[in-house]
Amino acid sequence: MRVIKITIEYDGTKFSGWQMQAKGFRTVQGEIEEALNKIFKKRIVILGSGRTDSGVHALGQVAHFRIDSPLSLEKLHKALNGNLPQDVVITKLEEVDNDFHAQYSVKRKTYRYTILNRDIRSAINRNFCLLYPYKLNVKLMRSEAKCLVGKHDFKSFQNQDISRKDESSVRTVKALTIKKDGDIITIDITADGFLYKMVRNIVGILLEVGSGKLPKGIVKRVLTQKDRTTAPANAKAHGLTLLKVEY
Amino acid sequence: MRVIKITIEYDGTKFSGWQMQAKGFRTVQGEIEEALNKIFKKRIVILGSGRTDSGVHALGQVAHFRIDSPLSLEKLHKALNGNLPQDVVITKLEEVDNDFHAQYSVKRKTYRYTILNRDIRSAINRNFCLLYPYKLNVKLMRSEAKCLVGKHDFKSFQNQDISRKDESSVRTVKALTIKKDGDIITIDITADGFLYKMVRNIVGILLEVGSGKLPKGIVKRVLTQKDRTTAPANAKAHGLTLLKVEY
Repeated sequence: MRVIKITIEYDGTKFSGWQMQAKGFRTVQGEIEEALNKIFKKRIVILGSGRTDSGVHALGQVAHFRIDSPLSLEKLHKALNGNLPQDVVITKLEEVDNDFHAQYSVKRKTYRYTILNRDIRSAINRNFCLLYPYKLNVKLMRSEAKCLVGKHDFKSFQNQDISRKDESSVRTVKALTIKKDGDIITIDITADGFLYKMVRNIVGILLEVGSGKLPKGIVKRVLTQKDRTTAPANAKAHGLTLLKVEY
Repeated sequence: MRVIKITIEYDGTKFSGWQMQAKGFRTVQGEIEEALNKIFKKRIVILGSGRTDSGVHALGQVAHFRIDSPLSLEKLHKALNGNLPQDVVITKLEEVDNDFHAQYSVKRKTYRYTILNRDIRSAINRNFCLLYPYKLNVKLMRSEAKCLVGKHDFKSFQNQDISRKDESSVRTVKALTIKKDGDIITIDITADGFLYKMVRNIVGILLEVGSGKLPKGIVKRVLTQKDRTTAPANAKAHGLTLLKVEY
């Protein structure tokens, strides 16, 4: 058996996420498996680095699958992209060692959250950034976010995920950078792993403190309390993009 | 009567352009007029700086219309955006002098054409750039394009437009810059006016000479011949964005 690692870009707008528990929804995993089915005339299951929610995008999601066909990598790559819809594309396809596992071998992942900080919505970028009309103090957001970097219990920033009930909520955030370019603010977070809705929950509180709705020092307080109910609502899915997964 | 100037951003993907000769198509002008109709309960005609084709986008299209209502600019702006679909938005709304005319007062316009110069299509930017898989020599494209700057008869780069048959095909290109950032190449063209499909025809020939399909010196030769049949096919609409209109 050969193990194939694929890197995937998708526009999450019209997907019910990477994978759904229930059937009958359009998912990225489902589309790729359907394309593989067309090529190999049999069911091949792919395994992603992790799920992304409905509306979340990816520039560098990673998955793997096994085949016993001798088809060349180049031909397989072309056949896959030829059978995929326009809103998903395999940007890279490699053969990897037999012990590679898209989920368990992950070293770190990087997500980007994009905010359009102005009054007027955007027509062209409407599906790729959150419109946030309240003036944001980026310097304050940076200083509030500092306490999140490092190894912490991120329970306050974790939504309940029934499929992973007993998992530890300790994660290591390797980097968190906030950049401003005109009215676009991007928040990049790299960690060894992310809890369910962790990025969106972190962005949610940074928006509240950055706009003055919550007081200085709130991020550290909420982190320390390890209680999801102490943190504000998460930021919407369509501002979020999975940038890369590293192994 | 008050004259209102609006600056408009739109994602052209699902529009049959700015305006159509025939009825029954979804156009940007049509959507804005429908929104005005909802607000003022009567038909108000808007006049754009010029048409854009089906699939072409705009960050700064401009139009004007007349109203006799005393409604404040702020309220009108909010009401308009509230009544427009998500793929079109009024980014700026101003009251201007009575002699302002969105089409006849134009001093210069700037268009951007975006090329994704690689093998693999993009899922996220699929509607906003042309996928061009052949290696492009950007330096050569720049030197070929030089002859287009200035006042010339651009007949070779004009498609027939039955609605403007007797118009002169002389235009002044004020600037033409080609930038490369990774695998994204952008071509920005500023002129006092553009002939029908002029940008896409210019980009079409620059792609052919940049990829080595046409010989060096071809752009100047085609320009001099003043004959559309001597130039290659135009580049597709979805890579084109009207960046701004200056008055």
